[in-house]
Amino acid sequence: MAFLKPEAIDLSHHLSDLAKARHLSPLKGLQKYWGRPGIISLAGGLPSPAYFPFSDISANILVSNSFPVERKQEESSFSWLWKLLGADKEKTTPVTVPKYPVRPEDINLATLQKIIKEFSDKVYSPAYENYTCLLHAGNTDAWSKVVITLCNPGEGVLVSKWTYPSAMAAMQPFNIKPVPVEIDGQGMRSDALRTLLTEWDEAARGMPRPRVIYAVPIGENPTGTTTRVARKKEIYQLCVEFGECIFLVEDDPYFVLQEGEYVPKSMRGRQAHTDIDDEAKFIASLEPSYLKLDYQGRIIRLDTFSKTIAPGSRLGWYTCNPMFAERLERAAETSTQAPCGFGQSLVTATLQQWGYEGYIRWLQGLRLQYTLRRDYFEFQLTVAPGTAGMWEGCQGLHWFREAQAQRHRILQRKGDDCPIPFSPFVPPTSGMFVWLKIHFDQHPSIATTTAKDLEMKLWIELAEAGVLFGPGSMFSPTQDWSSERSGHFRISFSNSERQNDEMTKSVQIFGKVIREFMGNL
Amino acid sequence: MAFLKPEAIDLSHHLSDLAKARHLSPLKGLQKYWGRPGIISLAGGLPSPAYFPFSDISANILVSNSFPVERKQEESSFSWLWKLLGADKEKTTPVTVPKYPVRPEDINLATLQKIIKEFSDKVYSPAYENYTCLLHAGNTDAWSKVVITLCNPGEGVLVSKWTYPSAMAAMQPFNIKPVPVEIDGQGMRSDALRTLLTEWDEAARGMPRPRVIYAVPIGENPTGTTTRVARKKEIYQLCVEFGECIFLVEDDPYFVLQEGEYVPKSMRGRQAHTDIDDEAKFIASLEPSYLKLDYQGRIIRLDTFSKTIAPGSRLGWYTCNPMFAERLERAAETSTQAPCGFGQSLVTATLQQWGYEGYIRWLQGLRLQYTLRRDYFEFQLTVAPGTAGMWEGCQGLHWFREAQAQRHRILQRKGDDCPIPFSPFVPPTSGMFVWLKIHFDQHPSIATTTAKDLEMKLWIELAEAGVLFGPGSMFSPTQDWSSERSGHFRISFSNSERQNDEMTKSVQIFGKVIREFMGNL
Repeated sequence: MAFLKPEAIDLSHHLSDLAKARHLSPLKGLQKYWGRPGIISLAGGLPSPAYFPFSDISANILVSNSFPVERKQEESSFSWLWKLLGADKEKTTPVTVPKYPVRPEDINLATLQKIIKEFSDKVYSPAYENYTCLLHAGNTDAWSKVVITLCNPGEGVLVSKWTYPSAMAAMQPFNIKPVPVEIDGQGMRSDALRTLLTEWDEAARGMPRPRVIYAVPIGENPTGTTTRVARKKEIYQLCVEFGECIFLVEDDPYFVLQEGEYVPKSMRGRQAHTDIDDEAKFIASLEPSYLKLDYQGRIIRLDTFSKTIAPGSRLGWYTCNPMFAERLERAAETSTQAPCGFGQSLVTATLQQWGYEGYIRWLQGLRLQYTLRRDYFEFQLTVAPGTAGMWEGCQGLHWFREAQAQRHRILQRKGDDCPIPFSPFVPPTSGMFVWLKIHFDQHPSIATTTAKDLEMKLWIELAEAGVLFGPGSMFSPTQDWSSERSGHFRISFSNSERQNDEMTKSVQIFGKVIREFMGNL
Repeated sequence: MAFLKPEAIDLSHHLSDLAKARHLSPLKGLQKYWGRPGIISLAGGLPSPAYFPFSDISANILVSNSFPVERKQEESSFSWLWKLLGADKEKTTPVTVPKYPVRPEDINLATLQKIIKEFSDKVYSPAYENYTCLLHAGNTDAWSKVVITLCNPGEGVLVSKWTYPSAMAAMQPFNIKPVPVEIDGQGMRSDALRTLLTEWDEAARGMPRPRVIYAVPIGENPTGTTTRVARKKEIYQLCVEFGECIFLVEDDPYFVLQEGEYVPKSMRGRQAHTDIDDEAKFIASLEPSYLKLDYQGRIIRLDTFSKTIAPGSRLGWYTCNPMFAERLERAAETSTQAPCGFGQSLVTATLQQWGYEGYIRWLQGLRLQYTLRRDYFEFQLTVAPGTAGMWEGCQGLHWFREAQAQRHRILQRKGDDCPIPFSPFVPPTSGMFVWLKIHFDQHPSIATTTAKDLEMKLWIELAEAGVLFGPGSMFSPTQDWSSERSGHFRISFSNSERQNDEMTKSVQIFGKVIREFMGNL
């Protein structure tokens, strides 16, 4: 690792006008007096802590090895889980945060900062030394601050063709426009990105060549795709190649939920990653962060506790170059200020109780649990040898076991003429989502109705029949349906449970509804 | 109370372009299917709650009558407080929030919503019925969302001549400019506001007449001024009078800290408000919110738990017309989303444990505690009959008891020619701050140095001598020092404690430093 040389790349040149206009904190030069021993401070604007009603806050937290990391027997893991949900056998430890810290090792504002820095350092191994970790109030808020820090109105951001709608909605009122890049089974395609950048025609596009890439590289929402390290290198290299122009924001909430390739049970040998109860091997088994490649300070990584602790924590952190971090800190000062202190305290107490090794152990357990859920979901699928998947290199998976597929042949593809609707999946290797494509070529109304309207119609019929999927049209950054002849649904397996029969029921309902919808083809 | 007639005033006409451009939540029309009994949902994007490590969170909270409301004996109140700080006698109740609610009365998302609605209803008595209460992540974030919802770049916002710097810093990068209005001992002057609005010259000013007023009506930061109801009526009437143009944002964190007029101990009879242990009388003793006057839906009120529960809670709520509330909800969806769930849960559990009456009782106790602190601070002051205060109608208070004033005559005024520096205060009737003015007319360098630089120099000399005040220049919205011949300091009494001798020490240090600073006049 080396210190980032600030002169290596002119970062300030790429701040938005808005970010440049932000005040420096006016107390900047005076801060050295704060907390000087013996000084009498009547300068503060805070109420007296004597009048905060909380004497202490506390929690019972699960022990860090609550979930197994070895998949010797799926069944026993699951039965263990059901016991856990019954709450009669869960093993917890109490943690307490007193109002007034009494011992030096008690939690203070710097504790969480130290913990996240250690995590970023050991897990992401950034390629330069003086990167900054800065707390934020969740990735959605963090992105909304990043985009107006880097982009001016009228500029564009490069995004996957299907992506997280709130991230797009955060840009839109500022007139910062998504520029979709074609994707495949690894998410954003580097070749498509190169073509876009090389052939950018400012006049025809009505905007300058975009300087920012928004990427969800692991288990992207909604497509479930994961960008492997070789692809990441190609994309990073493009950022370097195009002058000093391009920054990449790595929004990576599903990083630890890297479940790996799905192997149907019948073909399953040993489950490589799930045997690993060793920190270094666990980290090595994960696709690395863009930070590991970032020798020029071009990456702003967004981490969140929403998938590993609780979504309501509204707590996470940036890892990025010190200059961008300073501007983002200024942006927080006039809006969210610090993340909620109750959340900070409880998350810190938990991580302190577990320790770094304990947190890594917790994450390993989480990964196996989501892998089991993913596998239970994919157990409903069948690999159809010889049929094409959604993208080149993807397996052709269908949402049925062989026996069911016979009965619900509506979901099978017959050759390239596509006589019946075909619904390929992205086989999910990470995250919580499966992305389903529905071909409407054969729909009676395709000539007169947009794919979006057909999708919505089908969505409502499914809902009326008792199944909810995520409507695919939500995830289109451009909402341009002119050349679209397919619909999509996002299916979440994060709450799919073997215990009940919901998955099988939903398959039956889907088969029935889509057959009727397609005019009983 | 009556329903606000949406046609009475065209609210949508006054949204910023940015606010108009915000997405409607794309799931809007589909929400009726969410949570329908028996429906199988694979649509959600949330991780499984089985994998949140918190089995429960809990806290020990002070009972709602922890602090006395009667000031029969200041001394005994204070000694009671010191015992409390010793923590050996505080009376607490445990509250717990389980991960999975089991009974219908357990906390859910709607509980806090219901509590704040009841509070707004009973305490503020809004003048129309269909107002909306919407949670937010603290007043600073709330204001930053409001200002870009109402204003376009290049527009102005009417603010007090001295005001909260973070509120100004939130506007500045969006090129929304503060337009200062002259103040007096009640804060923003209605006559100055009328003149500004009537004589507004768009060409000369380089911006259209402002449509938004930012007001901190109770115990304004930094001046400590409070706008009484008659003044509020005049200002609200101006909003109505100037067509359909003007909205007022009431940022009111110090609402319950209405300590009342300071009466020197020697002149003190009974302390009216502190005898009141009755909800209705307590509320009646407070200057009302602008909401009580707002029959046209022009007020956006910002409430926060930061002064009544804890500043780190980053939790509060808007009370405003339903249309603005909807736009503000959209703004949160793409940034902060909901306030932190840990903070929401613990604050809700506390308010539920206390009940509405208990919370009112708690607030009454808080008010008396801050009143005692304010009085202890003002005990250091002397009323100087016949001398003018900072503004017309203000008492001339000096920062010394008579005996001390003899020794430190540097702080006394001698007639109108002001031969020695004079430092009047705003006698604080609310909030946590005292605003001190330092005349630099007699300073040897006033001809060659700006008032801001002199203030900063004095501030540093004070800091070096061991006392920190808030530098007044921080609170100037325009940072225009061309005609300024005074400096200011903000002094916080929220942490002033009789127990130690800090206040007396700081007075001595201040006297010595300012005498030297002014060239030993």
